[in-house]
Amino acid sequence: MTDRREINAIGLCGSLRRGSYNMLALRAAQKLAPHGMTVSIESIAEIPLYNEDLRTTDTPDAVVILKNKIAAADAILLVSPEYNYSIPGVLKNALDWLSRPPEPPFNGKPVAIMGASIGHLGTARGQYHLRQVLVYMNTFTLNKPEVFIGQADRKFDANGHLIDETTIRHIAEQLKSLDQLVRRLNPERFALSLNH
Amino acid sequence: MTDRREINAIGLCGSLRRGSYNMLALRAAQKLAPHGMTVSIESIAEIPLYNEDLRTTDTPDAVVILKNKIAAADAILLVSPEYNYSIPGVLKNALDWLSRPPEPPFNGKPVAIMGASIGHLGTARGQYHLRQVLVYMNTFTLNKPEVFIGQADRKFDANGHLIDETTIRHIAEQLKSLDQLVRRLNPERFALSLNH
Amino acid sequence: MTDRREINAIGLCGSLRRGSYNMLALRAAQKLAPHGMTVSIESIAEIPLYNEDLRTTDTPDAVVILKNKIAAADAILLVSPEYNYSIPGVLKNALDWLSRPPEPPFNGKPVAIMGASIGHLGTARGQYHLRQVLVYMNTFTLNKPEVFIGQADRKFDANGHLIDETTIRHIAEQLKSLDQLVRRLNPERFALSLNH
Amino acid sequence: MTDRREINAIGLCGSLRRGSYNMLALRAAQKLAPHGMTVSIESIAEIPLYNEDLRTTDTPDAVVILKNKIAAADAILLVSPEYNYSIPGVLKNALDWLSRPPEPPFNGKPVAIMGASIGHLGTARGQYHLRQVLVYMNTFTLNKPEVFIGQADRKFDANGHLIDETTIRHIAEQLKSLDQLVRRLNPERFALSLNH
Repeated sequence: MTDRREINAIGLCGSLRRGSYNMLALRAAQKLAPHGMTVSIESIAEIPLYNEDLRTTDTPDAVVILKNKIAAADAILLVSPEYNYSIPGVLKNALDWLSRPPEPPFNGKPVAIMGASIGHLGTARGQYHLRQVLVYMNTFTLNKPEVFIGQADRKFDANGHLIDETTIRHIAEQLKSLDQLVRRLNPERFALSLNH
Repeated sequence: MTDRREINAIGLCGSLRRGSYNMLALRAAQKLAPHGMTVSIESIAEIPLYNEDLRTTDTPDAVVILKNKIAAADAILLVSPEYNYSIPGVLKNALDWLSRPPEPPFNGKPVAIMGASIGHLGTARGQYHLRQVLVYMNTFTLNKPEVFIGQADRKFDANGHLIDETTIRHIAEQLKSLDQLVRRLNPERFALSLNH
Repeated sequence: MTDRREINAIGLCGSLRRGSYNMLALRAAQKLAPHGMTVSIESIAEIPLYNEDLRTTDTPDAVVILKNKIAAADAILLVSPEYNYSIPGVLKNALDWLSRPPEPPFNGKPVAIMGASIGHLGTARGQYHLRQVLVYMNTFTLNKPEVFIGQADRKFDANGHLIDETTIRHIAEQLKSLDQLVRRLNPERFALSLNH
Repeated sequence: MTDRREINAIGLCGSLRRGSYNMLALRAAQKLAPHGMTVSIESIAEIPLYNEDLRTTDTPDAVVILKNKIAAADAILLVSPEYNYSIPGVLKNALDWLSRPPEPPFNGKPVAIMGASIGHLGTARGQYHLRQVLVYMNTFTLNKPEVFIGQADRKFDANGHLIDETTIRHIAEQLKSLDQLVRRLNPERFALSLNH
C-alpha cells in the first residue's frame, strides 16, 4: 500500500557544552523538520583525538558506531558554533575520523549547515570552512537558505526553546530545502512520499 | 658585556602519528633555525577535547602548562598536515583551548606556518584556514616565505632526515624571516643580538 | 525516434591574455567533452567594470548577451588562473554582473572548475574562493575530480595543445562527472540519452 | 625643531556606485583619523580590466599613477562592499594591477580593512578573502579591531554622514591601531611624533 520512506537525517552538534545554543538549535530543528523527515541527534563527545596510528590498528568503537549510523542516514545536519573564526576542533576531529577509509559515510550525502553565536555573524566564518571540508568529503552541501543565528542569547527562552520567529522560519525552510534535495537526488526511493 | 637574548620559539606539530612527516619537518626546523634562535617542540597529545564547561570549572593541567610555555615564548612555529582540506581537528582543538581567557598566550606573537603532505599542494588549504584562525588569535603571522612541502614521501630519507635541498632552503629562509620579524617587533629586547 | 538532447555547456576563461594557459586548457576541454556534451567558449573581455548605477539604468549589451547564453546553457565550466591567491578581478567582475537580478542565470546550474598555473598549486586557492562565490550564486558545483594544472608551462606543446596525459585524463573525468551531474539533476530532459 | 612626520594613508573604495555606503564610510574615516594621520582617497574607477599582454607592453597611466601614490604612502585603508560572498571584481582587478612588478607598492605596508553592507555580516566574507590576497601582497594587515558595518542603511543620515556611535568608535579605534602599527614598524621615521 505504501512504499513511502521517511527521510532519516542525523544531526551532529559541534559543541560539547551542556547548555550549548547550538544543541538547542538542533533540538528546535528536530521539531521543525517537515513531515516525512526525522532528525536523530548523535553525539561526538566520545570520539577520541584522531591519530592515524590508532585508526589503522584499532579504530575506536565510538567511531565505528557513528560511522555506521551516518552511512545508513539519508541526510546530515551539522549544527555548530564557530571557534576562533573556524570549525571547532572537536567537530573537525570527529569529521577527520568519519572521512577516513574504509567507506567514508558522507560520500554523496546531502548536508545542511547551521550555527548559533552570541555575536552578529552567526558562525558564518566557521560555516565556509566547513563547506570547504565538505568538498573533500564529497557531499551535496545545501546552498540556501543559510542559517546564521546571531545574538543567540536573545533567541531562546529560559527553558531553551527557540522563540525567535525569523530563526524558526529559516530553520524550517532549510530543512524543507534539505528534504527536497534528498528527494531530487534519490527519486526512486523518496519521490512518491510527497505525492499527496 | 652581553645583553643578547636567544629567541625562544615553540614548535607545535598538528599530527599525533608517530612517523608524521610534519614532526620530521619540525625536527628539521630545529636544526635549521638561525644562530640565536632555538625551537622547542611541545606536544598537543595530552590536550583533551575542548568543552567550555570543563574550561570554566577545571582547566586541564596539560592546557595550563602548554599555555604558560607559549606565553613565555618569543615566537611560535606551527607545522601541520592538512586533513580534509582544513586544519586537523587535534591541532584546532589545542588552539581552541589556547585561545581562551585568561590571557590568550598567542596575542601579539610572531607565528610561522609550514606543512607537509603526500600530495602536491603541501597543506596549502589547511594553512589558509589556519591564517584565518590566527587573525582571531591576533598574531603577527609571517607572510613569506610560505613552506608547502608537497610529495613529502620523497623528501625524507629512511632515518627521517630531510634531504630535499629546496625544502631545506625554504625552511631555513622562513625561520630567518621569523627571526627578523621577532627582532623588528621587539627592538629593545633583541635588536643588539644581531650586531655583529 | 530520438529524444536525446545534447548537453550544452558554456566555458568561461578567467584570463584575457592571448596566450593564456587557461584558454588552452579550455580548448582542450572542448575536445575532451564526453559524447553528448558540447562546450561553447564565451568571452568576458567586453564586460565593463561593474557599477551598480550603470546596472540599474543601462545594463551593457555584452552583459545581457552573456547572461542569456548562460541562462540557456545546461552547465558551466569555469577555467581560470589564480591572481594574488584568489579569483582574477576580471572573472569576478563578470560574475558580479551575471549574479545580479533580474534572473541570475547561474541559479541551480551544474558548474565545474579547473585552472592552470606555472606554480605547483594549480590555482587551488582561487578555486576555493570561487566555490564560496558559487554558494551565493546557488549552483551545483562539482566536487570531484578537482583539476589543478600545476607547472602548466610543461603541459602544453609549442602549438598550445595539451600533452600531459594525467591532465588529459583529469579533464576528461571532470567533464564526464559534470555530464553525469547534469543528467542526474535533470532526468526528464537528459536521462534517455545515456541509455545505450 | 620638529622632525615629526604625518602618516599618509591612502584609502581605496571597492564600489564605483555614486551613493556607496562604503565611500561614505571611507569619508567618515578621513575625519576620524587620529591626530598625525591623513587619509587621502584615491579612485579605482579608471583602472581598466587587467590583461597581462597590456601590462607588459603598455601599462595604463591610471595604473602607474595609482601605483606611485601607494608606493609613497605609509599605510593603506581598504573599504569595500562584499559582492557574491567575496571581493568585488573591480577592487580585485585594481589589486591585480597593483600587485604586479616592477615594485609592487603594497609590499611591507600596513593595511586596514573595513566594509559596509545592508545585511548583518558587514562584508566579513569578502574581508577574509581580501586578507588571503594580502598574504600574497605581503602587507602587515591589521588584525583588530575588525570593522564590519552591518545594516548600513541605518547608520548614515540623509546627508551621508555616519551617525551610528558604535561604528564611529570602531572606525576611530581601527585607525588608531593602524597608526600604532605604522609607528611600531617604522620607529625611526615616526616614533618621535607621539612624544607629547
